[in-house]
Amino acid sequence: MPRYFMEIAYDGTPFRGWQRQADAPSVQAEVEKALQLRLRMDKVNAVGCGRTDTGVHASSYFLHFDAGEPLSDALRFAQGVNAALPASIAVKRVLPVADEAHARFSAREREYAYLVHRQKDPFLHDRSYLLHPALDLPAMNQACLYLLGKHDFRCFQRTGSDNRTSICEVRQAQWTATGAGYRFTISADRFLRNMVRAIVGTCIRIGKGQWPEAYMAEVLASGNRAMAGKSAPACGLYLARIAYPFIAEAKS
Amino acid sequence: MPRYFMEIAYDGTPFRGWQRQADAPSVQAEVEKALQLRLRMDKVNAVGCGRTDTGVHASSYFLHFDAGEPLSDALRFAQGVNAALPASIAVKRVLPVADEAHARFSAREREYAYLVHRQKDPFLHDRSYLLHPALDLPAMNQACLYLLGKHDFRCFQRTGSDNRTSICEVRQAQWTATGAGYRFTISADRFLRNMVRAIVGTCIRIGKGQWPEAYMAEVLASGNRAMAGKSAPACGLYLARIAYPFIAEAKS
Repeated sequence: MPRYFMEIAYDGTPFRGWQRQADAPSVQAEVEKALQLRLRMDKVNAVGCGRTDTGVHASSYFLHFDAGEPLSDALRFAQGVNAALPASIAVKRVLPVADEAHARFSAREREYAYLVHRQKDPFLHDRSYLLHPALDLPAMNQACLYLLGKHDFRCFQRTGSDNRTSICEVRQAQWTATGAGYRFTISADRFLRNMVRAIVGTCIRIGKGQWPEAYMAEVLASGNRAMAGKSAPACGLYLARIAYPFIAEAKS
Repeated sequence: MPRYFMEIAYDGTPFRGWQRQADAPSVQAEVEKALQLRLRMDKVNAVGCGRTDTGVHASSYFLHFDAGEPLSDALRFAQGVNAALPASIAVKRVLPVADEAHARFSAREREYAYLVHRQKDPFLHDRSYLLHPALDLPAMNQACLYLLGKHDFRCFQRTGSDNRTSICEVRQAQWTATGAGYRFTISADRFLRNMVRAIVGTCIRIGKGQWPEAYMAEVLASGNRAMAGKSAPACGLYLARIAYPFIAEAKS
């Protein structure tokens, strides 16, 4: 069975996350339904690069599936899948990969973006977090330096998570100013559940001057979720990039 | 009664246009409801700078209203109105004006933007027109030169409109490339109903190479709506700027 990677983007607002669920709309269920229709197969399993929570978006998400036979025209197939998907999910590309390529296990790096806007904006509703106060970007970026490298990030993990390890290697963590507000970019080899939103919540407390920059190091050292800031809302979070050793990254 | 101008932005998707209607949601009805609440007045009339059609957006729209007494804090008032409005409408500013200032009649120039994107994108759905083919921008811009100046634009007017005059002065009409596709900007002293969408539809036929550039001049000269292109969809259209002699324009 020839294996394919599919890159998609989705507006997470109408979904209870990526993962298929019996009683709630999910991106995975929509993608599998569209693939089944276009591949004319009774059952197609779409294996995603990871879970995303309710309301979290993806500007780039990868999944793999196995087709019954090779696709004669991947571009045309992608258009057909697009037409079968709701407006909230778009196929960006479909590409053949080796049989052992795996959307989740082959990923070498993931990147998330978190958007904050400062004034109510009808076009950013559900797409960014509305937070009025000005934030101290230099302080937040100073605090983010403590995140870089290999650390135990369990302090930013949803309580009750049972990962085999909470060690991640953060390779980039930076806030920048945008026209409407702020953007946080963070990349790592892997992320724990809720990790980015907890880091953003902690950064915001620092950016408001409520906590000193060095508090970030204390939170990390504590391993205690209760020391970190409140999770920032899902609507500002975007899965933005997944790197695989065998896929050239598209410009975005 | 002191008069105020209010600048708002709205996502037109959930509304049957600006204008209040008995049986359909409108921007005007929402704005009047919020103003009545914050001004504690039984009836407030919000007079808009113009109508917009169902699904058409505004990144900048002006209206005026008369308050019972002077607002002690316009910024705070704007925040209060914002909180009373749905997520699809945002107040950008509230400012005192002379009693004779009128949101519609005092306007000296209006500008619309029309957005086209070429690949399905969940974040542009209902916010831009999805049109796959590449368009010939130089040809479209050549055709747009015929629009500049004072002309009778009745060929681009919704049939059945009964304006006293269909003469408008177009001051800018230009297509530019964007990351996702194309953007059309057009400014004029006034616009006829459906005029921008009919011009965009005509430009698109020219951009696809189906009509020569000079056909734009023929359409204008004909005064015949049937000669012009099909109206482009409402979702790509934004009222983007209104100029008043007594208001400094905000950066946007």
